[in-house]
Amino acid sequence: MATINDNYLKLKAGYLFPEIARRVNTFAEANPDAKVIRLGIGDVTEPLPEACRTAMIKAVEEMGVREGFKGYGPEQGYAWLRDAIAQNDFQSRGCNIDASEIFISDGSKCDNGNILDIFGNNNKIAVTDPVYPVYVDTNVMAGHTGDANEAGEYGGLVYLPVTAENNFTAQIPTEKVDLIYLCFPNNPTGATATKEHLQEWVKYAKANGAIIFFDAAYEAFISDPSLPHSIYEIEGARDCAIEFRSFSKNAGFTGTRCALTVVPKTLTGKAADGSDVELWKLWNRRQSTKFNGVSYIIQRGAEAVYSDAGKAQTKALVSFYMENAKIIRERLTAASIQVYGGVNAPYVWLKTPNNLSSWDFFDKLLNTVNVVGTPGSGFGAAGEGYFRISAFNSRENVEEAMRRITEKFKV
Amino acid sequence: MATINDNYLKLKAGYLFPEIARRVNTFAEANPDAKVIRLGIGDVTEPLPEACRTAMIKAVEEMGVREGFKGYGPEQGYAWLRDAIAQNDFQSRGCNIDASEIFISDGSKCDNGNILDIFGNNNKIAVTDPVYPVYVDTNVMAGHTGDANEAGEYGGLVYLPVTAENNFTAQIPTEKVDLIYLCFPNNPTGATATKEHLQEWVKYAKANGAIIFFDAAYEAFISDPSLPHSIYEIEGARDCAIEFRSFSKNAGFTGTRCALTVVPKTLTGKAADGSDVELWKLWNRRQSTKFNGVSYIIQRGAEAVYSDAGKAQTKALVSFYMENAKIIRERLTAASIQVYGGVNAPYVWLKTPNNLSSWDFFDKLLNTVNVVGTPGSGFGAAGEGYFRISAFNSRENVEEAMRRITEKFKV
Repeated sequence: MATINDNYLKLKAGYLFPEIARRVNTFAEANPDAKVIRLGIGDVTEPLPEACRTAMIKAVEEMGVREGFKGYGPEQGYAWLRDAIAQNDFQSRGCNIDASEIFISDGSKCDNGNILDIFGNNNKIAVTDPVYPVYVDTNVMAGHTGDANEAGEYGGLVYLPVTAENNFTAQIPTEKVDLIYLCFPNNPTGATATKEHLQEWVKYAKANGAIIFFDAAYEAFISDPSLPHSIYEIEGARDCAIEFRSFSKNAGFTGTRCALTVVPKTLTGKAADGSDVELWKLWNRRQSTKFNGVSYIIQRGAEAVYSDAGKAQTKALVSFYMENAKIIRERLTAASIQVYGGVNAPYVWLKTPNNLSSWDFFDKLLNTVNVVGTPGSGFGAAGEGYFRISAFNSRENVEEAMRRITEKFKV
Repeated sequence: MATINDNYLKLKAGYLFPEIARRVNTFAEANPDAKVIRLGIGDVTEPLPEACRTAMIKAVEEMGVREGFKGYGPEQGYAWLRDAIAQNDFQSRGCNIDASEIFISDGSKCDNGNILDIFGNNNKIAVTDPVYPVYVDTNVMAGHTGDANEAGEYGGLVYLPVTAENNFTAQIPTEKVDLIYLCFPNNPTGATATKEHLQEWVKYAKANGAIIFFDAAYEAFISDPSLPHSIYEIEGARDCAIEFRSFSKNAGFTGTRCALTVVPKTLTGKAADGSDVELWKLWNRRQSTKFNGVSYIIQRGAEAVYSDAGKAQTKALVSFYMENAKIIRERLTAASIQVYGGVNAPYVWLKTPNNLSSWDFFDKLLNTVNVVGTPGSGFGAAGEGYFRISAFNSRENVEEAMRRITEKFKV
């Protein structure tokens, strides 16, 4: 009799975004004339950069002649893309990362989940609270947790609260943990980490033989030149950190699909016999066996992000969304709503007015002004009473959403 | 201290194809003038169908305007592609498969590995021998096996030998197993299954509460009209089988990346408390959490496979490779080499001459006639003494490879 992975049954009902979609659809069906503006899910809205499109069309055409046809590519990604990334994203910022340490994938979400494949089941895992739900859910699925309590916290995980009280900066744990998820610029709070803060984490990880999973999916949105874009800007990080990046947000690839994960060859984990095993070798084996690489066409599109035209076009995209974030911050502040983030990140994190619960504020916003955001409590217990507004939308929609909100909520 | 997944250390050195690549590279470096012909890895060589290219270029162009831009798509795939597949691949053959039961992915290899995520760790697993190595390796990685013996057989797995002696037809196990991997048309042997044979498996699976993983990646190569293309042509299969398919071989998508997995909503597995849990729900949750869907551009390319032009072009591609297979069969037979397969599958499986071991024949072929094939023993202990020749290459290369082999080996 085939048995199932019982850990799946511990998962709380529905991933956050499907639940939002459900409520929005219910509302839209009941109110077919309402013009709903979606600032919930962090999905980009503006056209794909021309440089990427031109490169992809060329790649499709190459596939049409025998001499240009590409079959199976390297599971790790094409060398020309790995080289471009190593040079532009890492070496140019002083990070000692080699192209061979970069693995191209079809999504950061995938890699965030799949990376657990190469680790043991007895690691103590730390996450911030609030947190990107995929970090938690994939650990639940892998059997690394107990059941959830009423607040949605899973037994066995170490939650590190990040709230206005601690300036959205997780405190280094006092207990010993083995795997640590960090995301900067942060989803959902929009908070950033200074080099000094990351240096503390690296010091902790090295002292404890821990591995940091550093999610830098939003690094392109950093405007403050003093802030690190990569954890490898921190001395010692090559010995304790895996970094995840994506083309989703800087180049608008959420529907095009390309991302990357950096696994330095200096990283090791402990085997049961006490020996140190190279994590690069394990991840390389995992990807070779369970993955077939990203489409050649898409990789050519990603490569174009690093051309002169591509750099200018992605910079313009990022600036566009960050101007949206600025508008959101200013208008909400004018409406006496307390806001955080939105300066080095495309997310504005706000304190709900009148101490409304996150979901109550979600329903109120949806029902009264037809604007969709993301309830903070959906990201974890410590997110209760907060709310995320995404800057990913057209200028017109952002302006209109803010006009509606300020009219309704102004003091 | 972060620990690793120790199961990875049980894996035998290198996946089969990297080992072949290593030997070929060593030979090519030592013999830079040799014109090596690769009939080893099952990778297509002919241009991507025009219908697919046209559709992808159109999709790229859509992405260039705000109104046509696509961000995150459904993790399960776009409805228009799932509909086209349900109608053309299943309903047209009398299979009762709904579009909602089809999950689009970026590769069958990925799905073959990932499907284990939703199953328990205590299932008894059966594979044929020889077998596509990914089935075995992913179970090793997931901790479902013991160590390997000298023949490369992992403890805990049930191996079902398929050799010339049993006409390459696995015997239904006498012991009870829970998960069964079947691949028809078979990689590597090129053998096929009749409806009667599959009916026996379905009967066994239903009687034992087992789930069949049915890999139909090569169904497009079936020429015999009496043979089933899908396991859902067999009564009762909706209650016991998951089917994997791919656009890699019929439409030349090995470098473009698109595949699909069918999980009928009628399938269940046992939870620890004895209850029956819908596998569709688990797989849907797995994909929603650990996957972000296939690129919109690529899905449009896959959809075009089902247009009139796409059908004609993929049919022509398949015919081209099958003519190669016919040439390989005929020439090897003329050289007194015993061949199997190659009639309803793009692989010819041969008995090595003079009882050479598979790897000895590999080295001999490489060194004397500069032709690369795949050692049968790389697919499992029972593949020893066999060898796989792939029909995926240009006509010119296939003709030349056969000319060299027949000259060297003719009696």
